[in-house]
This record gives sequence, structure tokens and C-alpha cells, in this order.
Amino acid sequence: MATTDKASPRDRLLDAAAQLFYRDGVSIGVEALCRSAGVSKRSMYQLFESKDEMLAASLERRRAWYEAQLTPPDTGSATPRERILHVFRRLEQASAAPDYRGCPYLAVLVELKDTEHPASAVAREVKDHLESDFRTQAERGGARDPRLLARQLMLVFDGASARAGARIESLADGLATGTVTALMDAAGMK
Amino acid sequence: MATTDKASPRDRLLDAAAQLFYRDGVSIGVEALCRSAGVSKRSMYQLFESKDEMLAASLERRRAWYEAQLTPPDTGSATPRERILHVFRRLEQASAAPDYRGCPYLAVLVELKDTEHPASAVAREVKDHLESDFRTQAERGGARDPRLLARQLMLVFDGASARAGARIESLADGLATGTVTALMDAAGMK
Repeated sequence: MATTDKASPRDRLLDAAAQLFYRDGVSIGVEALCRSAGVSKRSMYQLFESKDEMLAASLERRRAWYEAQLTPPDTGSATPRERILHVFRRLEQASAAPDYRGCPYLAVLVELKDTEHPASAVAREVKDHLESDFRTQAERGGARDPRLLARQLMLVFDGASARAGARIESLADGLATGTVTALMDAAGMK
Repeated sequence: MATTDKASPRDRLLDAAAQLFYRDGVSIGVEALCRSAGVSKRSMYQLFESKDEMLAASLERRRAWYEAQLTPPDTGSATPRERILHVFRRLEQASAAPDYRGCPYLAVLVELKDTEHPASAVAREVKDHLESDFRTQAERGGARDPRLLARQLMLVFDGASARAGARIESLADGLATGTVTALMDAAGMK
């Protein structure tokens, strides 16, 4: 996500927004964002109606990258169980980075505390999409109650990402994959 | 947590801080806090070194109340499993309130993104205390790996509180208690 002089002001703003909101939280000011992006406030307000819109756009822009991280490279051959474990293995790997601050979409929801905010809508969609993927795999894997298992996996995903991001837990020993293995077994999933 | 004129300026500030930080997030300004408490900024800075110190003190002050909520009324007769289920049943009940915004201690950690902040230290202590309680019950209940089970229960607790607080999940159907029951069974706990 390096910002270069060749990127458009819009892209520079969205990259700076994604970086700074993730690192410092959604309360970061417009001045700091514009300074980091090398864009004037006047230009920013020509590109975005508000800071809220810019936050939502920056989350939307990262979405494809974020979701690709959680998808197994070879989608054809992986079993449903392997596909679910891949998501949690990726979470465990990502959380080892020194600058990891948890799932950016959950963080935005926790920080904004406002279900009507345009960025909350984007975050909710990303979360719903992951849950829906879990449910599809749970169905394919023969879980007794695929919707319930998917909701349980989301609790673990968000709990693990929040705790690792806050540095009150380390996932390095496979805590997340171990926990979801127990839940998949309990749900009768192949 | 109603603020009355009879409360001291310090208590009024701490009550207002607890309410507003929880409702609006840690970025709320000192002006708004003082206004809500009916205390001048000058008085506030005589009582607290900084807003950060006031946030930490407000979390510390709520701690006894928060932990009492999660403790079964009759501690003598409850089995280890019942004691753990009580915590998650209380979480499910609390999350049904319209003003529920998730666990205040996890929220502060997610929002501050700063392990050195005095309020992060208080939040971490409260989280560690709950995990330690889970571990004690897991040991008493004969879990194969009590520490691992305690860490798994914390993932569920924090995932459930964050998701319910963000209104992307409802715990009303017993999602949290059902999930930890599966994990306690898998851990061989009585």
C-alpha cells in the first residue's frame, strides 16, 4: 500500500486513509490524512463528500485484497474443512505481524458504534460475506446445522482477531485452528 | 450510574466518563465529558493528570460491578461447568439491552490500539482475571488442557461481545452458551 507520486490524489487519499484508520483508529483527523496523502483539504472535499465517505471508500477498496487473503489458492481441490481451516491459518499468520491490529472491518464497527455509518455498512457486508462462505462450506461438509456452525466460526474469527490485535492473545500456537477444529468436529462436519 | 448533584466532582466525572466513553468511544473530548458531569475543565485537571488517566480510573471504578455481574450468586454450590455457563448466560442477557455496545474493556483495547496506555493496562487486567477464572473452573472440571480451554472460552466471549455490540449478531438464541458447551465437551470437562 505504498503511496507514490504517480498515484492519483484519490488513490493516495484512500491508501493513506486505510493505513491511518487501521493504525490509529477512525477518529484520526482530516488534516493528518491529507498531510499523509500529500493532498490539500480542498482537493479532498472535491473528491469525497465527507471523511465518513472516504472511510467507507477506503474499506471498500481494500475488500478484494482482504477477501483474497482468506481464499485458498486452489479452490477446486480443497475440502470444505480445509477451506475453513485455511481462513483461520491465514488469520494466525497475519496476526504475527508487528503492525497487526485485528480485523479492520470489525475494528471499524467497534470504533464507530453507529450502524447507520456508511463505513459500518461496508464492514457488515464483508463480515456477512465471510459468514456466508463458512455456511456454504459447512453445508458441503455435512454439518448438522450449517448456519449455527458458521455463526460459531465467526465468534472465533472475531474474538481471535480482536484479542490478537489488542496483544492480549497470541495465535502462534494454532489456537484459532484448534478451536474451530473442535467446533467442526462437534457439528459433525466431515 | 446516574449522576446526582450530591456526588463529588470526581465521581460525577468518572460516571460521565464511563457512560460517554462506552457510548461514543474513547475519542470523546474533554469538553463534552466536563459538560456532561457539570464540572469545569480546570477542576477536572485538578483531579486528573490527563484524559487518559480519567479513562483508566473510570474503567477501574466499574471493574467490581462488571466482575460481580459475571459471578454466580451462590458460589458454593455451582459446578465448574455451571459457573462458566453463567458467565455466557449473563453476556447473552446483557447483549439484549438496546444500549449494549459490547464488553467495555475489549472495546477500549480495540479503540486505543496502544498497549502502553494506562486504560489498556486496566482492561488487560480485567480480561486476564476472567481468563484466570475460566482456567480455575476448567481445572476443577477436569478439562484435559485447562489453559487451552480457558483461552478458547475467551475467544468466544470477546467474539460474541464484539459482534453483539456491533449489532452483527444476536445472542438471544443461546449462541454463546451453545458454543462454549461444545468446547467444554470437546475438552473432556465434566
